[in-house]
Amino acid sequence: MEQVDTLRNGFKIIQDTERFQFGIDAVLLADFAVSGGLRSASGVQAGEKVIDLGTGTGIIPLLMAGSQALSSNNLKSSITFTGLEVQDASAEMAKRSIALNKLENQINIVKGNLCEVDKLFDKHSFNVVTCNPPYMADIHGKGNNLDAKTIARHEVLCTLEDVVAAADYLLATHGRFFMIHRPYRLPEIFESLATHKLEAKRMQLIYPFADKEPNMVMIEARKNAKRRLIIEPPLVVRNDDGEYTDEIHRIYGD
Amino acid sequence: MEQVDTLRNGFKIIQDTERFQFGIDAVLLADFAVSGGLRSASGVQAGEKVIDLGTGTGIIPLLMAGSQALSSNNLKSSITFTGLEVQDASAEMAKRSIALNKLENQINIVKGNLCEVDKLFDKHSFNVVTCNPPYMADIHGKGNNLDAKTIARHEVLCTLEDVVAAADYLLATHGRFFMIHRPYRLPEIFESLATHKLEAKRMQLIYPFADKEPNMVMIEARKNAKRRLIIEPPLVVRNDDGEYTDEIHRIYGD
Repeated sequence: MEQVDTLRNGFKIIQDTERFQFGIDAVLLADFAVSGGLRSASGVQAGEKVIDLGTGTGIIPLLMAGSQALSSNNLKSSITFTGLEVQDASAEMAKRSIALNKLENQINIVKGNLCEVDKLFDKHSFNVVTCNPPYMADIHGKGNNLDAKTIARHEVLCTLEDVVAAADYLLATHGRFFMIHRPYRLPEIFESLATHKLEAKRMQLIYPFADKEPNMVMIEARKNAKRRLIIEPPLVVRNDDGEYTDEIHRIYGD
Repeated sequence: MEQVDTLRNGFKIIQDTERFQFGIDAVLLADFAVSGGLRSASGVQAGEKVIDLGTGTGIIPLLMAGSQALSSNNLKSSITFTGLEVQDASAEMAKRSIALNKLENQINIVKGNLCEVDKLFDKHSFNVVTCNPPYMADIHGKGNNLDAKTIARHEVLCTLEDVVAAADYLLATHGRFFMIHRPYRLPEIFESLATHKLEAKRMQLIYPFADKEPNMVMIEARKNAKRRLIIEPPLVVRNDDGEYTDEIHRIYGD
């Protein structure tokens, strides 16, 4: 069932409870891409062109366009966003969300498959690529099960390698690629990035609790950059008492 | 000046204050290799052959041979250690430490260069390789400065790739390679491991404080293994008050 939710930044988003609703992943990735981290100035800059691959409901462009970090620098209106989405129903819903917020001049939703970016966009035509891809490579038995949740979570329509290849095609020199994924796939992620001359420059592990294994990792890669990785301090989601940490409250804009 | 220090496990070690004294890196790596981590049983097993590359004073074999984790399993005497060291003075000092502890039957120090392991050892003849290598690739201007500290810290005599290639040569199928290094070199580490079919299976980042960037990383790679990485909970060295954390006290055997 469709519902309209209001984000902390004031924008509204249409979601379908039976399809896929955004999670903390999207919120953390949008902040990671906008903020630029502890020691770098790699966040989104004035006048840049940003594309989000597999945008779903358009949550990541909506979060980035309304980010406090951007508005404080009066950068908002100078940055343009494209959201690429393969599923008709999601792309159409994202378009309605953009219209609802009167952001048609800033966010453009394109219906299409990220495996075919060469037919949809000019080469090297973006400064920033973001992606919250399907995490799971185990697609056995899911061949005919192409519902929205399966497509969002499993690599049935695109693989990690497809995502990185698309980022490579789309990014200009020194362009940045921001991705969130599962830590257990880091060796593959590093291999795929290296193959495409996307140098991993910044990484942050997300720990559900301070003493548990991390369950997500965010990576910033830069095209044709010098090889040297900065690892950010751990991002811990919850305190021992189960409540969100101060850092998570800050990211959510509470 | 030479001095004899007593380790927490009771063994004695000869060190030269003007050459190189072991640091927390060696202590953490020895524990990482022996303990096998949170979810795996990858620690050193009964009857296995272990080699430490660039062993210096022999600290890592001495720590592992006397580890509480091993003695509690009565594994001690069944595991044999080799320490490979390129510098004459260090190798000779390590031999004297081994003799001082009457461990000649369990720890064998070999003088030699890890770039020439094919001349020193049979292929695939070890179950476990450990290494606390020189961290820094910036060898400019250090060409003629081959003092003990420079050799231990900078890649003047061996590179990361040399270390991984040596581990590849020495390890039997499913053998494990344990290394500690700097996080900023992770992309290179993953690339080098993948080239040699050493699959990164376990990783732990070491944070000097809970809210700072990590300054060390430990990796366990397994030869010809399935690709899937476990990242351990963060290892934090000091509390906010500057004191060692409980975990560090446990590792030191306090």
